[in-house]
Amino acid sequence: MRYLSGAAPQGSVLLLSRHEDFLVCASPPDDRPSEGRPDESLTLHVLPAPGGDTAVAAAGLAVAQDADSLAVEEHHLTVARHRAIGSVASQLRLADLGCAVEQLRVVKDEEEISCLRIGAEIADQALGELLESILVGRTERHLALELERRLVDHGADGPAFPTSVATGPHSGRRGHRPTDRRVEEGDFLSVCLGATYRGYRCEIGRTFVIGTSPADWQVELYDLVFAAQRAGREALAPGAAFRDVDRAARHVLDSAGHAEGLQPLTGHGVGLEIDEDPQLAPAAMGKLDACVPVTVEPGVHLPGRGGVRIDDTLVVRPEADGGPELLTITTKELLAL
Amino acid sequence: MRYLSGAAPQGSVLLLSRHEDFLVCASPPDDRPSEGRPDESLTLHVLPAPGGDTAVAAAGLAVAQDADSLAVEEHHLTVARHRAIGSVASQLRLADLGCAVEQLRVVKDEEEISCLRIGAEIADQALGELLESILVGRTERHLALELERRLVDHGADGPAFPTSVATGPHSGRRGHRPTDRRVEEGDFLSVCLGATYRGYRCEIGRTFVIGTSPADWQVELYDLVFAAQRAGREALAPGAAFRDVDRAARHVLDSAGHAEGLQPLTGHGVGLEIDEDPQLAPAAMGKLDACVPVTVEPGVHLPGRGGVRIDDTLVVRPEADGGPELLTITTKELLAL
Repeated sequence: MRYLSGAAPQGSVLLLSRHEDFLVCASPPDDRPSEGRPDESLTLHVLPAPGGDTAVAAAGLAVAQDADSLAVEEHHLTVARHRAIGSVASQLRLADLGCAVEQLRVVKDEEEISCLRIGAEIADQALGELLESILVGRTERHLALELERRLVDHGADGPAFPTSVATGPHSGRRGHRPTDRRVEEGDFLSVCLGATYRGYRCEIGRTFVIGTSPADWQVELYDLVFAAQRAGREALAPGAAFRDVDRAARHVLDSAGHAEGLQPLTGHGVGLEIDEDPQLAPAAMGKLDACVPVTVEPGVHLPGRGGVRIDDTLVVRPEADGGPELLTITTKELLAL
Repeated sequence: MRYLSGAAPQGSVLLLSRHEDFLVCASPPDDRPSEGRPDESLTLHVLPAPGGDTAVAAAGLAVAQDADSLAVEEHHLTVARHRAIGSVASQLRLADLGCAVEQLRVVKDEEEISCLRIGAEIADQALGELLESILVGRTERHLALELERRLVDHGADGPAFPTSVATGPHSGRRGHRPTDRRVEEGDFLSVCLGATYRGYRCEIGRTFVIGTSPADWQVELYDLVFAAQRAGREALAPGAAFRDVDRAARHVLDSAGHAEGLQPLTGHGVGLEIDEDPQLAPAAMGKLDACVPVTVEPGVHLPGRGGVRIDDTLVVRPEADGGPELLTITTKELLAL
C-alpha cells in the first residue's frame, strides 16, 4: 500500500478500481501514525468503519463502484476478514492478487535507490563513530542502543530492523539479539545494522576483533568469509540466477568444510521492507535484473567460539555502468579495535 | 502462543492436541529471535518446513496424531495459509478458535501483574530522569530516543510501543509520532511511554508545561482532563461495565464542550500486547473483573493550540483490597518545567 499510494496510515486499505483509486482510512491520517503522504491522485475516504475494519469498508466501496470482482492479497488477508468481505459484498467474485505487488517492487527506480543510498551512508556514519569509541567492557545491548541513537541523530527515520551486536561466542550469528554480555579482549565483535530513510531500509554487517592482534584462527576464518562475500558480490549482474549468486558465496565456505550450519540464504532484496524478493538461496528460481538492491551476507558461526559475518547492500548494475554499486562502503579489512 | 507456551520463536506455531502439545519451529530457537523460554511440558519440533510454513507443518503433525478437527485462529491466519493447511490435511475439519486465547488473557495472575508493576517502575524512573534535564530547544525525536534509552538502561526489554513526545500544537494527540519540532517556552509537552518487562507492556502518559507559569487556558484544560481521568480511575471496580468507565471520564469532557474530536476510547487492557481486551469505549460490551490491568487515558487536543493527555496503568482490585492499584505513580500535578 505504501508503495502504490505513497502513504500507509495505520489500519488503512488501498482500493484500486477501474475508474478511480481510493485510500480508505478509519480516521483522518492526522490522527493516526502514518508513513509518507498519500499520492494526490488518490481519493481519501475517511470511514467510521465499525471495528476499524477498513477492508470490509473498501469492499463496500467496490460494490458501490459497480465492480464485479475484487482481487485481494490472500497472503496478507486473514480468514476472518476474507469472510467478512464475502458476506458484506456477496455479489463480488473474490480472487487472489498473489504477490503481484511484491513483484512490481523488486526493480527500484532511481528515487528509491537514492533513499537506500542515503540510508546506507547514515548506517556507515553510525558504525564509523562507534568504532572510534571504547568498546571493551560495554554490553551488546548498550552498543546496539548507541548505534540506533546515532542512526536517528544522522537523519534516519529509525533503525531498519533490530540492531544486532554479537560478541565472543555470539559473534557471526545472523539476527543475534543483543544480550548483557560485555565486550572482552580477544573477542570477535559482529555488528549488523541498517537505517530506514523515507521508508527504505538498507543493511550493513561487519565483524571486528577486539585487542591488538587477532588469533590465527580468527584471521583464517575472516579471510574465508571475506572471500565468500567477495565471490557473492562479484556474481551480481543482470541476468545472473539467484541460486548462482548464492552458490558463488556458499561454495567457498562449503569447500572449507563449513557446509553444515550455514544459513539458508546468502542475501535478499531490500526496499520498503528489510527482507523482500529476491532470495539468494540454493533453491531460489529466477534471475537478477538491473536496479535490484540486494544484500550479500555470508557468515560462519562456530558453536562456542564465535564467527564472522560480512554484509553489504549493493544495487545490481550492468557491467557497462561499472557493475554492482556498493552502497555500504565501510571498510571490510579485519580491524583490530 | 507466547502466553500458552512461554516462548515465541519467530515464525513458529503452537499445536495443542489431546495428548501432547507441540511447539513447531522452522529452526532451533537458538538460531532465531525468540521471546522467553518454552514451557518444559511442550515437545519442541524443529521442522525444515518448506517456505518456513510451520502452520502447514503443524497441520501435518495433527494428522499424524489422529486428530479429526483443528481449530485455528482465523483472525490471525491468512487465507493463503488456511488454504495450504486444508490441502495438506484434507481429512481435518478446520474450525475457528475465535478469540478464546485473548479471552483467557484478560485476567492476569500475580506473576503477570508483577511484571507489569516492574515495567511501570522502569517507565516512571525514565520519565523522572527526563524531567530533571533541560528540555527547551530539544526536539521531540531526541527526547523520545532519550526516554527509550533510559528504559533499557533501567532493565526494560525495550519500549512497549513507539514513545510519543508531543510539543506545543502537537501536545495532547494520542499516538503522536515525534517530529523535529523543538520544545519552546510556553509549550504544553505531552509524553507517552512504556516499558516491556519479560514480555509485559505498560503505559504512562503525562502532560507538562514549559516555562515558569502556565497560561490560564492551560491550567483550565489541564484541570478538566485531570478531573476526567480521575473519574475514569474511580470508576474501575470488579463488575463495572466497560462503557460505564468510559462514560465516567468522557462525561466530564463532554459537558465542558469537548464532545467533538474525543478519541474513540478512554482506555484499554495491557499485557503481552500494549493494546488488548477490554476496550473502555462507548459501545464496548462486558464488565471488568478483578486483576485486569487497564489504562485510563482521556485527552483533549485543540487543533492549532495543543492539549493534554493523562494516562495511567492500573489493576482492577476489589474495594476490600484497597480499590484499583495504580502502577504508574509519577505525579499528576501540573508541573511547570
